[in-house]
Amino acid sequence: MEDKVNLAEKLDQLEERFSPGIVGYLNDYKLAVVKARGEFVWHQHDETDDFFLVIAGRLTIQLRDRSVELGPGELFVVPRGVEHCPKADEEAHVLLIEPRGTPNTGDAGGELTAEERRL
Amino acid sequence: MEDKVNLAEKLDQLEERFSPGIVGYLNDYKLAVVKARGEFVWHQHDETDDFFLVIAGRLTIQLRDRSVELGPGELFVVPRGVEHCPKADEEAHVLLIEPRGTPNTGDAGGELTAEERRL
Repeated sequence: MEDKVNLAEKLDQLEERFSPGIVGYLNDYKLAVVKARGEFVWHQHDETDDFFLVIAGRLTIQLRDRSVELGPGELFVVPRGVEHCPKADEEAHVLLIEPRGTPNTGDAGGELTAEERRL
Repeated sequence: MEDKVNLAEKLDQLEERFSPGIVGYLNDYKLAVVKARGEFVWHQHDETDDFFLVIAGRLTIQLRDRSVELGPGELFVVPRGVEHCPKADEEAHVLLIEPRGTPNTGDAGGELTAEERRL
């Protein structure tokens, strides 16, 4: 059986921004940490909601009609099919939860699309 | 669409210990916060893994062959079918994620079994 996960320690192992590292699984969901800085890409996931929990820093989840500002200990679930674009003016550390196989860039693709990798 | 969730604010609304309050959903999963203090009950979930993330305090997840000690920012996933019994010597605040309908006491039942309720 796996051991516990210290999120800060896992985040220390991440170098690239917007490149999630998987730290565990919950049934068929992946638990991943990511360092966000700058603006990601507008995208949506038609098959799944999208979970964000800020561990450190501040993350803005831009939606087409408003923005959601998250600080440490704050979470937001983007409903399936809703376009969003995360951005962080300074580096933010985030826990993501999505079904395994969900591409980080959703329908958008492009150069920020990351392979699933285990930390 | 729902707004963001501040976990500390939601935890402030909880009075009873070991009585989870649902703060949101991720597809068919419930996101719940709970205040743990004392020893819960030995139980297992045969149909699902069980996600624990400590927000504040310290939580011990007793397994039959070892214990996992979690502090703030640490998570552990109890695999399906594995007996466990959470305990906290002092109050711990925890984020739980499980499929909707998963009973908090798993196969054990008993007086600590809580109805699903939304905070």
